[in-house]
This record gives sequence, C-alpha cells and structure tokens, in this order.
Amino acid sequence: MQLDGENTFTSMGPQPFAGPAPVFFVGTYDSHDRPNIMAAAMAGLCCTQPPCVALSVNKTTWTHSAIEQRGAFTLSIPSSEMAGKLDFCGLASGRSESKFYALGLTPAVGEHVDAPYIRECPMVIELLVRQAFSLGAYTQFVGEIMDVKIRSDCLMRDGMPDPAQLDALTFFPLVGEYYKTGVFAARAFAIGKTILRVEST
Amino acid sequence: MQLDGENTFTSMGPQPFAGPAPVFFVGTYDSHDRPNIMAAAMAGLCCTQPPCVALSVNKTTWTHSAIEQRGAFTLSIPSSEMAGKLDFCGLASGRSESKFYALGLTPAVGEHVDAPYIRECPMVIELLVRQAFSLGAYTQFVGEIMDVKIRSDCLMRDGMPDPAQLDALTFFPLVGEYYKTGVFAARAFAIGKTILRVEST
Repeated sequence: MQLDGENTFTSMGPQPFAGPAPVFFVGTYDSHDRPNIMAAAMAGLCCTQPPCVALSVNKTTWTHSAIEQRGAFTLSIPSSEMAGKLDFCGLASGRSESKFYALGLTPAVGEHVDAPYIRECPMVIELLVRQAFSLGAYTQFVGEIMDVKIRSDCLMRDGMPDPAQLDALTFFPLVGEYYKTGVFAARAFAIGKTILRVEST
Repeated sequence: MQLDGENTFTSMGPQPFAGPAPVFFVGTYDSHDRPNIMAAAMAGLCCTQPPCVALSVNKTTWTHSAIEQRGAFTLSIPSSEMAGKLDFCGLASGRSESKFYALGLTPAVGEHVDAPYIRECPMVIELLVRQAFSLGAYTQFVGEIMDVKIRSDCLMRDGMPDPAQLDALTFFPLVGEYYKTGVFAARAFAIGKTILRVEST
C-alpha cells in the first residue's frame, strides 16, 4: 500500500480514541451480595508474567464500589449476537436494577474469585485485583488472571477456542459502533516471516 | 441465546488472555535518533478525561529504552492488509535493523511529540508519557493523547473515520491469529435501547 506524495492526514485533536477496543461484561457482587454486570471497553492484557489485565472503571459507577470492596471481578466475552445485551449494560446501572434479571442472563459463581460470570458467554476470565491506580476520572484495576474458561460447545482445535466461531465484538470509539471479529486475516508469528525485506530485493 | 442445563465450561487455567486485542505499530526515536517501530497488542484507552492510553512494553525491548529516554510515542493503526508488516515487527528488533527501511514504510515526524508515525497507516495517535508503572516483566506507560490523525483518503461521514473501510486488525492471544474488524455489528448506545427487559414482557 504505497501512497503518492499528495496524501495527507487530517488532525482530529486530542480525542479519547484507541482501537478498535475489545468489549467485556465486568461481573461483580455488590455490597448486598447481588450479582451485577457492567459493559467495559477499556480493558486488556497488561502483563503476561504473571498474566494480568488492566481494567479502567469510572469512579462514579456501582461496579467501582464493588471491585473496591471485593477485590475481584470477572470478564465475560460477548459474541456478536450479544451486542444488544452488552449495549444495554452501558445504558443501565446496577445501583437501581438487576441487569442479569432484566437481560435474562444467568450469574454463575466464580470458581477462583469472589465474583460472578455470565453463563451464556462463550469465554470467561476470573481475576483477583493486585493493584489499583487513579487515572483522572477512572481507577485502573490490575487484576491477575486466575482462570480462563471456554464454554464447552465453543471448544475447537484440540482444546483451543475458535475465534471465528466466537465472533467477539470490538468497539470503535469515535464513531460509537460495534464491529464483528470473526473473519480470519493471518497467522501471527508466521505471516511476518514471508515479508521480503526491501534491501534484499 | 439460552443454554440448556447441560452446558459447561472447560477451564484453561491462568493463561495470558484477554481479547480480541487491538494491535498497533508503536513509533519511537532511539538514542541515535533513528525511527523505530514495534508491534504491540497490549495497549488501549485507560482514561477519557484526560484522554490517555495505557501501553505495556517488555522491559527488554529497544522500544522500552526509547520511550524512557524520549517520554513520547505514537500508535499507528494498521489496516488488515498490513498484517504481514505488523507481524514482521514482532519478529525483528530495532536494535539490529531498521524496520521502517526493511518494510518500505515512511517515517513521518510527529507534530506534537518527539516520536515518528507511519505515513502508510490509516490512523495515527500521538502520545506524551505521563506515568509509568512496573508490572512484572513489563512497564505500563500511560500516554496522554495529544492528537488523533486520519489519513485524508479514509475520512468518511462528515469528518469521521469509517471503521469498515479502515478494517483494522485484532489479535486473538491464545491461538495466535489476527482477525479483521471491518464487518459492522451494531450501533453503540442505541441497540441496547431496543432490548425488552425480561420483567416487562
């Protein structure tokens, strides 16, 4: 993809954009032991040894209090047909209603941490909070991964998940849209080996 | 998507997984003022006010030294046809060769920060490092977004980017594959409003 000399960039200023971002249901128990879920688009791996996820949560949310109190959370990964349920979680608060109940989703008890996950999601991560950093209006919770679970009917390829079948969602911030991720592009740590260096041609 | 009572989860243990993850070229100048790029799959928005990105970088990398020295980096977002070039950057080190040159990519001088970006990428983010946290084998650099740029030929919809046209890549950790993101799923902050609460039916 070579560009001609005329190509230029348009500046949009300091917008809150990086993406496309993965989206998750964040599962917690609140101070009344009620299971709650929040939609999150600011989370991702931040360390592999030990395996940790950084999750940014607005300080005003019900989930923020719950994570502070329990020191644990789960991430349940939605498939693309769950976009409506995920989006609903971004529009309602666990302070005033049970989102599990409203959405007909089933809270499952975490095996390793004091937090519930969603039984209808194809993949789930259980996390213990190890650190917390204040970042402006957010707290970034660094959770150590205690377990990754795959719904048995999504297991393919000798015990590994099949991303095409999971078809997880990503969120594109500036335009406010969800996109599907089920279309294969290339194998990692492999396609790069086929690149011919410019100097060798 | 209701499940029957038989559905179960298979535990994979504490794997380094959260995703699908966005991928970026991280652009820096090294101590010899040479432009360098690294492939990153551990980065994303961590705060919207001010707009900040958290980027985890292995402490052994050439890019880690560069970010520490210059206090700045860029993120250039590859479209799906750049998967090979991105993957190459994960296999080679700027310590021993110029990846810009090897890949035939053009370093452009950052407008707002002391770091280069890739002229051939459809979207670019310029960042100033505000904080750095040690997380195991990684440092997490929190960069404040100084500017988001879109290549003019990718601008659509009244000055906004078109995610379907950009078709950015995501990385699925456990299986080591890149997936395309150009297929629209739903509008955010909208499709959730169409959900009928269980109790209201």
